[in-house]
Amino acid sequence: MPISSLPLDDDTNRNLIGQSFEGIDTPAVVVDLDVVEANVRRFQAYCDDHGLGLRPHIKTHKIPEFAALQMTAGAVGINCQKIGEAEVMADAGLSDILITFNILGPAKLARLRRLAERCALTVTADNETVVAGLAATMAGAGQPLDILVECDTGAGRCGVQSPEAALDLARRIAAFPALRFRGLMTYPKAGAARAAADWLAKAKALCEADGLPCPVVSSGGTPDMWGAGDLGTVTEYRAGTYFYNDRSLIARKVCAVADCALTVLATVVSRPTAGRAIIDAGSKALTSDLLGLEGYGFIPSLPKASIYALSEEHGFVDLRDDADRPAVGDKIRIIPNHACVVSNLVERVYAIRDGKVVDILRVQARGRSQ
Amino acid sequence: MPISSLPLDDDTNRNLIGQSFEGIDTPAVVVDLDVVEANVRRFQAYCDDHGLGLRPHIKTHKIPEFAALQMTAGAVGINCQKIGEAEVMADAGLSDILITFNILGPAKLARLRRLAERCALTVTADNETVVAGLAATMAGAGQPLDILVECDTGAGRCGVQSPEAALDLARRIAAFPALRFRGLMTYPKAGAARAAADWLAKAKALCEADGLPCPVVSSGGTPDMWGAGDLGTVTEYRAGTYFYNDRSLIARKVCAVADCALTVLATVVSRPTAGRAIIDAGSKALTSDLLGLEGYGFIPSLPKASIYALSEEHGFVDLRDDADRPAVGDKIRIIPNHACVVSNLVERVYAIRDGKVVDILRVQARGRSQ
Repeated sequence: MPISSLPLDDDTNRNLIGQSFEGIDTPAVVVDLDVVEANVRRFQAYCDDHGLGLRPHIKTHKIPEFAALQMTAGAVGINCQKIGEAEVMADAGLSDILITFNILGPAKLARLRRLAERCALTVTADNETVVAGLAATMAGAGQPLDILVECDTGAGRCGVQSPEAALDLARRIAAFPALRFRGLMTYPKAGAARAAADWLAKAKALCEADGLPCPVVSSGGTPDMWGAGDLGTVTEYRAGTYFYNDRSLIARKVCAVADCALTVLATVVSRPTAGRAIIDAGSKALTSDLLGLEGYGFIPSLPKASIYALSEEHGFVDLRDDADRPAVGDKIRIIPNHACVVSNLVERVYAIRDGKVVDILRVQARGRSQ
Repeated sequence: MPISSLPLDDDTNRNLIGQSFEGIDTPAVVVDLDVVEANVRRFQAYCDDHGLGLRPHIKTHKIPEFAALQMTAGAVGINCQKIGEAEVMADAGLSDILITFNILGPAKLARLRRLAERCALTVTADNETVVAGLAATMAGAGQPLDILVECDTGAGRCGVQSPEAALDLARRIAAFPALRFRGLMTYPKAGAARAAADWLAKAKALCEADGLPCPVVSSGGTPDMWGAGDLGTVTEYRAGTYFYNDRSLIARKVCAVADCALTVLATVVSRPTAGRAIIDAGSKALTSDLLGLEGYGFIPSLPKASIYALSEEHGFVDLRDDADRPAVGDKIRIIPNHACVVSNLVERVYAIRDGKVVDILRVQARGRSQ
């Protein structure tokens, strides 16, 4: 596994290597590399079997070494959501990047132009203002910038509203010498990936009938990923959370508890009553994301317990029964509701195998929201 | 105002000084210094008028220059929630620090001992395990560590469960030569600050009758802060969010829209339908904190609009009416539900006066969750 150790910032961290994860100070994000590798292998094999290009979304981990691991396993490229994320990845040598975001404004466009000069870059657009800005920015560049038209196939996010509107925007893109229309992109409504693919097939047919080839048709989403191979028109699939998995994906039966690679390690700091434990992980460690669930995480060692509330630095655990355990000072591991927002809160993750710390990785693209 | 400019990390940021905040790239956190200063002055004056020591909680801003501003205005000291926050503040010269957290584990205790050597430090404890750890850590130190007993006066957070239990723990603290019992601390249940103060008065009386002076009785919370002067027994008040204010405090009638100093600046990146705008601030900029509200923020320039959903990097705005404005590329300012978790997501905040950027401050204690 191509993970290079990054500079560790103090002796405490350096001394952890080779030791049990129980020695990590809390709260901290712990990543089981064996589970990560199995997650990556499993979905890569599925995509390979179905002739589908897998383009991992790095928003989940924001760590170049992990993106490189996904590329080595067979990904066709990576997906970023922000220029800042893509810059970090390009700096680390990732060479095929799709940014699924409307890029606007002089500062970001200037950075986009520089980025396009050092990697194979594709961006999405769903309106004429964005297309005009991209075209003006790329004028005179050595080669045109690849553009996918973002389509709202039912999720109510960004995107043109009909296959006809997709064709219209594709024509406008193709009319600019500095841009190259490359295809279509959507994030489908949950559970409606099939309908989204049909929408895209119709838009693709309209484009091709108009003389606009559509070599890339990109769909995505971890929740529906196990049906990605049956979507016909779709050539590439974007997924992020499958890398770590989380409680929301257990609830949707996309993965099992044992497939969750990311946990938040926390310490029980108070046992004010027999049924209540308080931990040192609150909304600044677990986030307030519910994703439709009750409570803020699952504790595998206390499967009946509920993390029923969070303040900023405390989590409140209902132990359900009066219980001696956990005691003040005990450490517990929590599978958070949503792994992607958790990893964005921390500077580093602690990588483990067989319960021992093997590496400490900096979350290099953390907070790169611009 | 004693704000020193910190090193700016690129020319784009440096060129912003003196310019309109509209030039700041998005998403970004913008802080109006005139509003901050008015917020600080107003509550400091209230505490002064009521003979109450104000101890601001720096978790809200995590910026040493802002803590210094609060001290200059008349605060008795500052309040931190984590050792890491306190270290950043001590490094910057803040000299009287209360950490309202049970400190546990060898790594944190070693840091606590070093911290106690360079500032006037007080910590809280609510159980014997924590007290024993603190006592062992401080053994042989030049002077004893000041301890407040944390009391659960009804909020169901940390804290001993009765005034009698407070006395019991105070006795145990006083028995250790390395520790000094200094008083009581609580975070009251919302709207029940009066009952909390009565609880504390009873505990204080028990302690004093037992020969244990209780010079510090600390309560807190921005939502109930305008009643802090009527709590009798309470000698110090901890408040954090009053520094910035936010949408949750508007909803609770603690402040007005004009008192909100922190806004998230965002760009409209898509207008897929007549009634929907999509902005480049999602849960990684605004957080998913609801605090009992509907929606994820208030847009003063679009008071009828609702930020009805967030993905990680997009916010979804229902404009209520079909509307030409805002257009793609327009910037809007959002008052978030909860300012404290928002400022923890960013590396820097942009300080403005009269709409112009006057400084860029690093959120030095961001992510210091250990």
